[in-house]
Amino acid sequence: MASASHAPTPLLKDELDIVIPTIRNLDFLEMWRPFFQPYHLIIVQDGDPSKTIRVPEGFDYELYNRNDINRMLGPKASCISFKDSACRCFGYMVSKKKYIYTIDDDCFVAKDPSGKDINALEQHIKNLLSPSTPFFFNTLYDPYRVGADFVRGYPFSLREGVPTAVSHGLWLNIPDYDAPTQLVKPLERNTRYVDAILTIPKGTLFPMCGMNLAFDRELIGPAMYFGLMGDGQPIGRYDDMWAGWCTKVITDHLGLGVKTGLPYIWHSKASNPFVNLKKEYNGIFWQEELIPFFQSVSLPKDATTVQKCYLELAKQVRAKLGKVDGYFNKLADSMVTWIEAWDELNPPKGGAPTANGPPKK
Amino acid sequence: MASASHAPTPLLKDELDIVIPTIRNLDFLEMWRPFFQPYHLIIVQDGDPSKTIRVPEGFDYELYNRNDINRMLGPKASCISFKDSACRCFGYMVSKKKYIYTIDDDCFVAKDPSGKDINALEQHIKNLLSPSTPFFFNTLYDPYRVGADFVRGYPFSLREGVPTAVSHGLWLNIPDYDAPTQLVKPLERNTRYVDAILTIPKGTLFPMCGMNLAFDRELIGPAMYFGLMGDGQPIGRYDDMWAGWCTKVITDHLGLGVKTGLPYIWHSKASNPFVNLKKEYNGIFWQEELIPFFQSVSLPKDATTVQKCYLELAKQVRAKLGKVDGYFNKLADSMVTWIEAWDELNPPKGGAPTANGPPKK
Repeated sequence: MASASHAPTPLLKDELDIVIPTIRNLDFLEMWRPFFQPYHLIIVQDGDPSKTIRVPEGFDYELYNRNDINRMLGPKASCISFKDSACRCFGYMVSKKKYIYTIDDDCFVAKDPSGKDINALEQHIKNLLSPSTPFFFNTLYDPYRVGADFVRGYPFSLREGVPTAVSHGLWLNIPDYDAPTQLVKPLERNTRYVDAILTIPKGTLFPMCGMNLAFDRELIGPAMYFGLMGDGQPIGRYDDMWAGWCTKVITDHLGLGVKTGLPYIWHSKASNPFVNLKKEYNGIFWQEELIPFFQSVSLPKDATTVQKCYLELAKQVRAKLGKVDGYFNKLADSMVTWIEAWDELNPPKGGAPTANGPPKK
Repeated sequence: MASASHAPTPLLKDELDIVIPTIRNLDFLEMWRPFFQPYHLIIVQDGDPSKTIRVPEGFDYELYNRNDINRMLGPKASCISFKDSACRCFGYMVSKKKYIYTIDDDCFVAKDPSGKDINALEQHIKNLLSPSTPFFFNTLYDPYRVGADFVRGYPFSLREGVPTAVSHGLWLNIPDYDAPTQLVKPLERNTRYVDAILTIPKGTLFPMCGMNLAFDRELIGPAMYFGLMGDGQPIGRYDDMWAGWCTKVITDHLGLGVKTGLPYIWHSKASNPFVNLKKEYNGIFWQEELIPFFQSVSLPKDATTVQKCYLELAKQVRAKLGKVDGYFNKLADSMVTWIEAWDELNPPKGGAPTANGPPKK
């Protein structure tokens, strides 16, 4: 699918890292070569650290396995999930770039309705570099796109928009369904290409999927913690959801924007719905309590940084969700640990640099 | 453009009226014949009542001019705008049907990307007959469409949705821009067909355009008052906006849904931006006060009907917007008059029917 005609202008080449969690060889990168090769990759190896992950020739990358995570974070490594793609957030933490794009290794290049390969990364960058409009809905969708604008009745004082912190992309072919829906609709494929980008309004929560996601690390990075999932935890497949709910509450509080819609990737294969059900079933119960919790979270005025907001959120998680299940007390602890580890690896500008460099190259 | 192959199954044939405000002959109906002919039309003649409006053969319609409005409403006719398409809301009031579709006479049949004529009315009906999801955003848009569903992380308790009160359709070709935007971008045309329908989340306001709009009259009719615009008023082109803001606040309060997106119509010609600017300029100032007002409106728990909500809203308009301009006191009076007139023409079920039937046929 890659062809010379698609060689993109590499926007933000030195300001963006691509984070990929994986347990297998990264052959899927071949298809992305024309779009990703100019960028630096951070690969977070999930599971057995003795396994060697093969990365196609010519990519610039650093790779972290569990041993690296343990070595770099010491006891704080407990906040990074094991045997779950939630481990990807370690990559957000070690990056030194302003922007992150994260993608799953079963996501391929999709085609737009004209048959052209979609440069998902380029579209995410465009989304992140143009403002969001969380305070009022624009019926022609993203007013900053070519050929669109604010419609009649849109207050002029809101037309500058606010900085975009998150760009949430979608998936053609296999939709991101939960296990019950997968079981009921095993053959459903997403074939609808919706040519829109829109801001998720302030006060509205959404299910953020980590498969095809970009964000501004400086604006929102410390909120992108993917929680405790997988090995030894009573829940899986809620890592990105958790990050999304926390992120949305914090972007709303800080006056930042979240966009969803374009770009699409091609999601190649459905995961096993029986395995998924086992991972999800606690989450399916718990989310009925989590959503009202996040809908009613209120952050104090003096929470003016993402870190402060996140620590306040951890406190509220403990106070209000601890009674739903003891797991949430553990999660609240990990949220605090995550912020401590983040600040250790990302000291305030002008502070001393961290001692631990990237392990392999 | 009409062809036999498009003969639709006339959904809700006896439960829906098409309301058209006009000052000219309704030749535009020829193009809509395959889709509209099975339905009843309510034509509200704007301006000079001595002028005869020609309606193409074969359509079933009733037509009201200013004399009819004055005769039927007596002194309460003051709430209906004159020389402004805001007069269309009189048609909502005299209808006896459950559903209303309203369209402007410069709106033609649009084509979908495959080149097929779009039956806008049929799509609106589908929108109104399927639920809305105002409490949580679904990233694959309307989960009730064929080929779509709720995505992972969408709480199961919210998947039944709520009744849809409003279906807001869009426009290809001439976008619905305000005068300043028209002046700045005289050549901009909307060519982007976005294949999506979505629920506007609870708590989010939007600019509702009256050009291509359907609603459930039983659920929300009395909130669809298009205000005092046009002749003798200091403002125009905010009729539908006003109705939209009132409607959204009330649907949010009553747990009803508002959808936007498909269907598209083809908006044939831009109105004169200089004339529009004259009509709009007060609105452009005032909306900066109106939006924060509507964003902070709170309706009391005992406002359990649209009428009660609307009268409460009128009270708050007087209390909080009267100081912005005396116009809002007059508007608040008219809002009360509108509800009185609505209740007179639409007595509670089991009550005495109204004396005044339709005037012409």
